Amino acid sequence: MGIIGFGAFGRLIATHLGPHFGLCAYDPAPSAPMPGVAPVDLATAAACPIVILAMPVGAMEETVRAIGPHLRHGALVVDVGSVKMLPAEIMRRGLPDHADIVATHPLFGPQSARDGIRGLKIAICPVRGRRAPRLAAFLRKVLGLDVIMTTPEAHDREAAMVQGLTHLIAKVLVRMEPLPSRMTTRSFELIHQAVGMVRGDAPEVFRAIEMSNPHSAGVRRRFFDLASALDAELTEG
Amino acid sequence: MGIIGFGAFGRLIATHLGPHFGLCAYDPAPSAPMPGVAPVDLATAAACPIVILAMPVGAMEETVRAIGPHLRHGALVVDVGSVKMLPAEIMRRGLPDHADIVATHPLFGPQSARDGIRGLKIAICPVRGRRAPRLAAFLRKVLGLDVIMTTPEAHDREAAMVQGLTHLIAKVLVRMEPLPSRMTTRSFELIHQAVGMVRGDAPEVFRAIEMSNPHSAGVRRRFFDLASALDAELTEG
Repeated sequence: MGIIGFGAFGRLIATHLGPHFGLCAYDPAPSAPMPGVAPVDLATAAACPIVILAMPVGAMEETVRAIGPHLRHGALVVDVGSVKMLPAEIMRRGLPDHADIVATHPLFGPQSARDGIRGLKIAICPVRGRRAPRLAAFLRKVLGLDVIMTTPEAHDREAAMVQGLTHLIAKVLVRMEPLPSRMTTRSFELIHQAVGMVRGDAPEVFRAIEMSNPHSAGVRRRFFDLASALDAELTEG
Repeated sequence: MGIIGFGAFGRLIATHLGPHFGLCAYDPAPSAPMPGVAPVDLATAAACPIVILAMPVGAMEETVRAIGPHLRHGALVVDVGSVKMLPAEIMRRGLPDHADIVATHPLFGPQSARDGIRGLKIAICPVRGRRAPRLAAFLRKVLGLDVIMTTPEAHDREAAMVQGLTHLIAKVLVRMEPLPSRMTTRSFELIHQAVGMVRGDAPEVFRAIEMSNPHSAGVRRRFFDLASALDAELTEG
């Protein structure tokens, strides 16, 4: 299995797939090597039977173009981006017809997976070929993930609320720091904990969620409109 | 001990103080009677050695005026409002000099106290007399609460962030319902859980937090300004 893009999420993948697959990884800016993961060039990673795309969504189009000529016949290409409509479209258009494609979104990151990934959620969108059910069965039975079969459209509609709102609220609260830590309520502590889970996410993740999901701007608009209305009610008493 | 205002929070108080005190309660709109709590008139409740004010902050001034003549010499009057500057001032101005006063804010409600109150927080502000340390010791040792000794000013400054932000975010998210429940991340689930904890709070609690805390409007303003700036950044790309 070749992992292309070996940042925080690529390394998380390697941690959990290492026991089940021979792994190699390519990154244009290689980080520390990881035991059991061979550092290779792009062509080598792309020539594996299974290729995982773990780069920022913004770099996907260029990567898809670059790996096309190296893909073996019948390769399975899987992405792990936080949005699904745009990557599914990029892969469908850019990858050769002989490659099978499954778009996925693991609904967790290094923070929420700190104590393991069993029980965590992953969205799976079949894009081309018939490999999605078997991939889903592996993720469910071997890794213990909660697999949600969906479409890129349905995914992005829900993710715009789930991730769009979480990251929006988190970004604003981070800008309000320092937040109180002593005189706190249980509900505030939960929100604070949520902020802590996403505050370390790469800026590219935030950009993808807010800007590459066609539904995000509408969710933001609704949030701000409702917030303004509430503020007006309070100001008027 | 006389509880004046026998709504959701008054009943929560009775549940936890029942084993330690003889209790009676007055409410202008009596709810279901509670075993071990004698329903009484205002004068009787106000004539107890300890009087707990558990009505909405908006009704406190009128209540303080009404109970004054009935308070026994050396009575201890304790409020439990979500803000502290206004109630402390109302009690200091309105209660006879012979009454001791401690302003408190239990940083929990019926939801967060569902599994018990041990380890939950309560803010204590001495207002008049020397009874606060003994009250604090009881709350700490007997009820297991985490007692925060503070002043009304310091309390309201921190609570404006803690409760102001929590309730603001919760109110907006409730207005955005239905929220996704399937394709959720751990961080979104934490925020959703926080919303669930405060969504049942009486409207008076929200009003007190947002309108009777002099620092709340400034916190809202900061939240909205930072959110607008973020939105502009995202819109401009």
